[in-house]
Parts: sequence; structure tokens; C-alpha cells
Amino acid sequence: MARRTGKHTILLDTMPVVLSWAAVGGKLEGEGPLGGQFDEINEDSYYGEKTWEKAESAMQKQALTLALKKAGLKGEDLQFIFAGDLLNQSLSATFAHRDWGVPFVGLYGACSTMSESLALAALFVEAGYARLCAAATSSHFCTAERQFRFPLEYGGQRTPSAQWTATASGAAVLGAQGRGPRVKAVTLGAIVDMGTTDANNMGAAMAPSAADTLKKFLEDTGTTTADYDMIVTGDLGQVGSALLGELLAKDGISLESRHNDCGLLLYDREKQTQVESGGSGCGCSASVLCSYLLPALQNKEVKDILFMATGALMSTTSSQQGESIPGVCHLVHLTGGA
Amino acid sequence: MARRTGKHTILLDTMPVVLSWAAVGGKLEGEGPLGGQFDEINEDSYYGEKTWEKAESAMQKQALTLALKKAGLKGEDLQFIFAGDLLNQSLSATFAHRDWGVPFVGLYGACSTMSESLALAALFVEAGYARLCAAATSSHFCTAERQFRFPLEYGGQRTPSAQWTATASGAAVLGAQGRGPRVKAVTLGAIVDMGTTDANNMGAAMAPSAADTLKKFLEDTGTTTADYDMIVTGDLGQVGSALLGELLAKDGISLESRHNDCGLLLYDREKQTQVESGGSGCGCSASVLCSYLLPALQNKEVKDILFMATGALMSTTSSQQGESIPGVCHLVHLTGGA
Repeated sequence: MARRTGKHTILLDTMPVVLSWAAVGGKLEGEGPLGGQFDEINEDSYYGEKTWEKAESAMQKQALTLALKKAGLKGEDLQFIFAGDLLNQSLSATFAHRDWGVPFVGLYGACSTMSESLALAALFVEAGYARLCAAATSSHFCTAERQFRFPLEYGGQRTPSAQWTATASGAAVLGAQGRGPRVKAVTLGAIVDMGTTDANNMGAAMAPSAADTLKKFLEDTGTTTADYDMIVTGDLGQVGSALLGELLAKDGISLESRHNDCGLLLYDREKQTQVESGGSGCGCSASVLCSYLLPALQNKEVKDILFMATGALMSTTSSQQGESIPGVCHLVHLTGGA
Repeated sequence: MARRTGKHTILLDTMPVVLSWAAVGGKLEGEGPLGGQFDEINEDSYYGEKTWEKAESAMQKQALTLALKKAGLKGEDLQFIFAGDLLNQSLSATFAHRDWGVPFVGLYGACSTMSESLALAALFVEAGYARLCAAATSSHFCTAERQFRFPLEYGGQRTPSAQWTATASGAAVLGAQGRGPRVKAVTLGAIVDMGTTDANNMGAAMAPSAADTLKKFLEDTGTTTADYDMIVTGDLGQVGSALLGELLAKDGISLESRHNDCGLLLYDREKQTQVESGGSGCGCSASVLCSYLLPALQNKEVKDILFMATGALMSTTSSQQGESIPGVCHLVHLTGGA
């Protein structure tokens, strides 16, 4: 039975299992360092659909379909699907999951959605509310760009601190029993707003929330960063990652070489220069989790990972009205497969 | 300890307590049949803020502030806030709850958000993940109208099946111990899409999901509608409520006089003719719950209520792209206060 430890962390005593997972990506993601580890790369930005929104939705459905297939399961075996995305009214997730006939818990955590959905799925399994459930999310460069920034046809210039919304999806199936990496602890984060207003520098807006959640987790568990093989934020990019290091250093916490960021792992910034500060979007951390982190745990390359997806909780309306950009970061402690 | 019963329902053995609640509304809601039971009515559609979006956010923050005050609690006493709203990227909920410093679980369930948040809060208390947590949501006629339909200045004509987005918020505080109505069972719903495409007839789009969730709950628990004093959907309005009755009748389920709908309870359709088929918006079911249903349980006027908020999971983009409108309905069985 789970128990709270410290003020903010829940230890999952049964350690729910991540039974299977899948990552689906687009052309640019396929050309990146993790491209070969994706379950499916589709170079058609429309994914065979008529619109980019339908494409994103189809990708998210496909990620869950592939994850279920790997575990020998069907949609009807799931008790809950936890999912969301970046689009207005969570369009991609809703349409991706409307035909399963499975209870749907819609989430909104911006780019933190993969850790939010993974955390809730694990907590539902731990509590006995579900034997099997799924966590999924997605993003698409073209749907995000035209919703949040400019029409694609405009060809707007990007700043060096800007991040590139990944065209990708990730889905994971969690269960009470079986083989696979396990969820050991969860720290759901509070919203942190340090007053950043530059929508082209979301890494800086989200770094304080990542620092806040990590500090709380370490304090609650009485551990240090040295106790984990990898501490993976997503998606702070280059600018936000540097800021995270500075913020933690003030509290005497050193990340050293343990830290990486999904936005930096997904692309090769030297070759794929258009990504500027790195990747972003719900699908970035979701696909890095499902193409790289979970397999690394499964293959025993690493033992303990803190997966910390971060979200910038702004909208075009809030930016137009002069509001700052609140961030949130949810942490999931994943431990090696058995 | 909770246990699943049937395929879709979770029985909460500890029966988490709804310790306190508050409803905040605008001018029209104040003039409606429940106006006198709201904790606060503010006739200023800007709620003292510069924009309607900031107003909606301030209302949601105020609803939680009032609910906490009634229970003699502070924000920092909460372990989690479950919240969402209708706006793009859940703007109102995010900004309402950014200053509490409390872990934030962002949800998107459209107008089903109050039952989604209430269900998750109860499940977290039941599992021991939280001693105290909050569920909250809101909507605002002016923010919804200009986001989903037309600029307010346009003065667009409304169809008889159209519903009126409530300017209202509701918040509830749940705990493991104390006095108040209790959460006895939860059935989270699957997405149901029967192909309705008329965004001016959301009641019809959502009625099939309400029928689906209610049927599953009755089947899982081996009960009939006669076992409940009130079965309250939200927000199907007049058109959707009639359709729900027809759909259930096909399966031999009679709602009789037990059924009511938050969209019909909030306004007097005879006098407040502009609401057409009834109220809608996350704040409609949230404020009806917190101004009428929870007090009725507390005062022992009724013993068992099935609270079933329904959501239409569309966006302007999905409608423009010719998509149908998927619906979802989450059910919470509330039982009389002690």
C-alpha cells in the first residue's frame, strides 16, 4: 500500500510495472539521435490524414495501439486511459481515444502531460483501481506552430531560445503484475511562476518548476542526485537546462553529468539547427521516454531514472493579455526492469 | 480500501467526506432559482479584473478560497488541487491555482470537469494519497462565447437547442475525516461519439455518454434508478435531457421524476429565455453542486444523489474540420451528510 513520505511524495509500495510502450515520430525525429529506436517513423506530416490535427490524433492512437500489441493486449483490457495534449480542448487525445470504449481521464499539463499521465496511471494501479491502464500524449510541429505562434506559410524567424515542437507521440501500458521497469515514487508538482513572459523562452519559464519539484522529491525521500543514474527533464532545452543547473546550485544541489533533457536528447542540435534550443511539446518527453528511457531501464543499462516532464501553462490569450508563464513539473521515479 | 465492482465502478469503502464547498456566480445566475444559495454573486462580468479571462480565473480562485475558509483551512493544508476549465490550455484553472503552492493536477473534461475532479479527489483521499484535497472548475459566458462561437459584439442569434454558458465557479474540499456528504462510488466514463455535429446542440451530443455511464453504474452496482433520490446530469439542457430519457427507455431504464439537469436547475427558462435549452459550461454543474446538491445532502433533504457531469469534447478546430462531437460523462455517487 502506498504511503506519503515527506510533504509531497508518494512511495508506491507495489511498484506498478510499465509493461509495454511505443514511440511514433515524424521525419525530423527519425533523423535525430533516437530515430532508430522509435517504433514507427512516418515522413508524411499528414500521417495519411486530411489535416495535421487529425494526423496528431492518429499518431497518438497508433502509439497506444503499438504499445498494447507489444504486451499482447487489446484496448478493452484497459480500465483507464490517462491522456492529454497541447491543442485547444485536448483535441488530439480526445479523438485518439474516442473509439476504445475505455474510461477516459482527460488531462491538461502542457508538456508535462507524459509524467502527469504516467503518475496517475501508476497511482491508479497501486490503489487497486485498475489492473491495467494506459498513459499517452502527443504533439505535432504543425498543429502547435499554427495554434500558438504563426501560420506555417508565414515562415516566421525563430529566436535562439525558441524550442521545436516535436511531431511525436508516446504511450505506455501499466499494470499491477508482469515484467518491466517499475514506478517507485511520484511527486506531483505545484505551479511555479517566476514572472517570465517570453513565449519564445519556455525553457526559462519551466526551469523553476523543475527545480522546485526535484528539491521537494530529494527532501522527501532523503536522497541526493547521486542516488539516480539519470535525471531527465523535459523539455527545458539548452537555455532552460542551464538555468535549472544554476537554480539548483544555489541550494547546493549538483546535477553533474546525471542530468539530461528530453528536448536535447531528441534532436542533434549541431546538425538539426532549426530546433534552436531543443525540442518541446508533449510528444517530445513522451517519445524520449518510450524510445530511450524505458528501453534503457529494461535492458539494465541504467537502474534509476527520475523522469520529470515540465509544462508551460500559457495560452495565446494569456500571453496577449500580458500574463507571465507559469510552469509545472511532475516527477516519476522509474526503476530498472526485472 | 476501495474495490472495483463490475467492469467500470469503484466503491470507496472509506467514503471520503466533502468537508466544504462554495459557489460563485454572475448576475444572471444570481437571478436564477438557485441565486439565493450561492456564496457570492458578483454582477460585474469583469469581476474587478481587466479581462473576462482574468475574471473567470479570479472567480475560480475565490470559490476555492471561500470553500477553504468554511472548513477553517488554508491553501497550504491541501495536498492536491484537481481543476480544469473550458478555455484553451485551461487558462482559468492554471492562473486560479498558481499561487497556492499546492501540487496541481490539471484536467480537461469540458463540462464534465466537476465530476472528473471530484472523482479524482475522492479516489486520492480513499487511497491515502491525500488527507485533504480540492476539486474546482469554472466557466464564463463571455470567455466561452468569444472562444467557441462569436465575438460578443456580433450579437449572434441563438438556436432553441443552444445552451447558455454559466458565469460561475464551484469548488469543494475533500478529506478523509470529518462531517459532510460522502463519496460512495465513482464511475469514470468512456468517450461516446454518436456522430452529432451540431455545435449548437451539445445536449444531444452528450446525452449518449450520460446514458452509457449510468447504465454501467447501475449494472455494476446491481441497483436501479429507484435507489437514488436524485439523478443529476449536467449539462444536457432541455433537449439533451429528453434524449437521455429516450435512450434509457430503450434499455428499460426509467428516470421518472428523479432526473434533473444542472443546466435546467441553474436558470428559470420561462423568465430567463435567453438561456434557450438551459445552462452549460464547467461552472454550471460545479455551481449547482455547490449551491444546491451538497447543501441538500448536508441538510438531509435527500440521501443519495448520482452527480453526472457531462462534457462535449469538441473544439472550434474539430468542428471546422467536420468532426462530430464526442461526449463523456463521469458519475459520482454522493450520500447524505452525517
